[in-house]
Amino acid sequence: MRIDIDRLRHDLETLRTIGRAAETGGVSRTSFSPADAEARRWYVERCVEAGLDVEVDGLGNMVVRARDEPSTAKPVWTGSHIDSVPDGGFLDGALGAIAALECLRRLTEEKVPLARPVRAVVFADEEGNYSHLLGSTGIAKGFDRARLEAMTGRDGDRLADRFAELGWDLDAATRTKVEPGEVHAFVELHIEQGPNLEAGGFDIGVVTSIVGLGGGKARFQGRADHAGTTPMAKRADALLGAAEFLTTLPGLAASISDDAVVTCGLIGVEPGGANVVPGTATVTLDFRDPDRDRLRALGEAVERSAREVAGRHGLTVTWELDTPVAPVPLDEGIRETIAAAAERFGYRHTDLPSGAGHDSQNMALIAPTAMIFVPSKDGRSHSPAEDTSWADIERGGNVLLATLIALASDEAPAPRGA
Amino acid sequence: MRIDIDRLRHDLETLRTIGRAAETGGVSRTSFSPADAEARRWYVERCVEAGLDVEVDGLGNMVVRARDEPSTAKPVWTGSHIDSVPDGGFLDGALGAIAALECLRRLTEEKVPLARPVRAVVFADEEGNYSHLLGSTGIAKGFDRARLEAMTGRDGDRLADRFAELGWDLDAATRTKVEPGEVHAFVELHIEQGPNLEAGGFDIGVVTSIVGLGGGKARFQGRADHAGTTPMAKRADALLGAAEFLTTLPGLAASISDDAVVTCGLIGVEPGGANVVPGTATVTLDFRDPDRDRLRALGEAVERSAREVAGRHGLTVTWELDTPVAPVPLDEGIRETIAAAAERFGYRHTDLPSGAGHDSQNMALIAPTAMIFVPSKDGRSHSPAEDTSWADIERGGNVLLATLIALASDEAPAPRGA
Repeated sequence: MRIDIDRLRHDLETLRTIGRAAETGGVSRTSFSPADAEARRWYVERCVEAGLDVEVDGLGNMVVRARDEPSTAKPVWTGSHIDSVPDGGFLDGALGAIAALECLRRLTEEKVPLARPVRAVVFADEEGNYSHLLGSTGIAKGFDRARLEAMTGRDGDRLADRFAELGWDLDAATRTKVEPGEVHAFVELHIEQGPNLEAGGFDIGVVTSIVGLGGGKARFQGRADHAGTTPMAKRADALLGAAEFLTTLPGLAASISDDAVVTCGLIGVEPGGANVVPGTATVTLDFRDPDRDRLRALGEAVERSAREVAGRHGLTVTWELDTPVAPVPLDEGIRETIAAAAERFGYRHTDLPSGAGHDSQNMALIAPTAMIFVPSKDGRSHSPAEDTSWADIERGGNVLLATLIALASDEAPAPRGA
Repeated sequence: MRIDIDRLRHDLETLRTIGRAAETGGVSRTSFSPADAEARRWYVERCVEAGLDVEVDGLGNMVVRARDEPSTAKPVWTGSHIDSVPDGGFLDGALGAIAALECLRRLTEEKVPLARPVRAVVFADEEGNYSHLLGSTGIAKGFDRARLEAMTGRDGDRLADRFAELGWDLDAATRTKVEPGEVHAFVELHIEQGPNLEAGGFDIGVVTSIVGLGGGKARFQGRADHAGTTPMAKRADALLGAAEFLTTLPGLAASISDDAVVTCGLIGVEPGGANVVPGTATVTLDFRDPDRDRLRALGEAVERSAREVAGRHGLTVTWELDTPVAPVPLDEGIRETIAAAAERFGYRHTDLPSGAGHDSQNMALIAPTAMIFVPSKDGRSHSPAEDTSWADIERGGNVLLATLIALASDEAPAPRGA
């Protein structure tokens, strides 16, 4: 049994027009924005059209089910998100959200006899305009009202105000929570957002884990001086120290693992004048590894390098570290089911970690969870250049459908985490 | 003959209170601001009190002369500025401007017979809120009305509007110009703004030249990528290339001369997100050397290094270069006069270049020009920490007075540039 790629493609191409920027071709569907609301309405219409029921929880997560579910057994969930980063791509999230709908449509159309219901879920604010993985965090952990009231978006707007505009109820949002054991298993189809599947000639990625993430700001402190009157040897140039530190990062990552990455995506100096030696340089770091111990070692190596370089330059360095996010290993049983499905279709598949965060990392806290990746052209994502061939999308949809059938039939290897 | 250090000190400490920030103790007298206007009024009052006449030209430069000048021979000028950078020090400019007034007072009081008049000048907008060395550039080169009308300040305000508020006439400003030969010689007393005199145990610096200056923006271009999903080996990280380039700068300066300096005082990345590999990194550079050929070699070495590093990192680099400012050698005859004066007083003196720009570099275009430096504590300047001992200030004032007497008596070695 296969998905209907023409219907899936039509849906993805239609959704792509909602929030599309004429200039770049990119998609801007910030969560709870008018474009996001329009996409939600469109999604609900597609569900209703297919004879499916949609329930929206207090945080805006949408759960889609067949009108006549086959049993009261714990359901299998699948899904992703339809919000986007500003000027992002048309597949990040949307692929998994629409493929989930397509799978439900196929199961309904074919009246596939299943031991468990299969439900589609569309998570709210995955891209974290208000909070990183907002909707799935609510599902896995819940939020109290004070947390929600403190949340502001990229533009400084309050989540509470946005909810009031939408006629939503912040108290209802605090009631969003799914208990461990309520969901039998969760599977998310997503684009890889990296170059590895394409480079290796693979059709399908079986995601082994979602990387752990550390980061924060390192502030190198030296002394601001006149750029013309201070000899090179008498300077304590904070930027020179920060620059030397940055050059050590690729070597540090390589010393930990092939999967480890360290990135400085933001840098600033003070006082900040063309003719002033920087007294302060602040670098914002993001470091990741799929293994918990290696992630810790990576963070330690990064901090040690900053200290060593600062010492050599007569600088001090202070850290403002973010709370680290632990790596999330995905369920081995479901991974076997995914790999077996890919085998049956004759698709080339490989195991790989996810370098990006996903709602699956929250779902893994309450249910056995796995992810299916399809290749990203040139590894591009969070960009209008984000793309995947329709053949790869079809393959991903077919593997998702087969995996859901196996999980809902209780034919698959039992989820290890269950 | 000596200056009156008590009077000079009293004046410097009074001027210091105009535009003083209570919090930092720093001085903020942006040119043509209310604080600058108040400082100008105060200065004029001191001149009138001393029986001196003040003439203000169309750009706001003030020229002070004795009511009965001894002769119609070409005058000797001395002076500096009283505007400041935001939250700057109390001596940068002010020392030379008040010391010039003090020298005129002493010459008048002592009725020193001189072959030439000595005049004090206070240049407008030396710190370049509207244009680098505005007043002295007008004196040396003149401005047309279109240039003046295009000038805007740090805060985006137009010079033309500021002049209108002050009741000044932009057409009169275009008439500011002093022809080569009208001034016999110019001498400026200034703080060093660097650590060399203090470190060497010298009282007086005889400035050999004002450094040449090059600079501009180098833009490293790579590819923006997701910080989590893009393996280190597949990145074209613009910031990593820029960082490696920055680490080459001290070596490049050292390879040119002991006086050469290269500074990056501003850096920025795009798109600029904690989880985005920078696609673009832009560094703003300032490089200086007192020798014209070495300055050119330094600029070439900097550009070559950027290209080499960019090539190694798979990046491109493009330059937006500022118009270079040539080094200005100062007049050897006046330098000998200054050194001889220091000798007579028993002050320890040394030759050194000026790493900062000064009005003297414009005056050198129309008259034989030299500069006298006094030590800066810890080399600090453009900061509330800017300071010089009163003993050093007295020594600087005495050397200035002796130099002016020698130049106006035609006793000194003839200025070489005359």
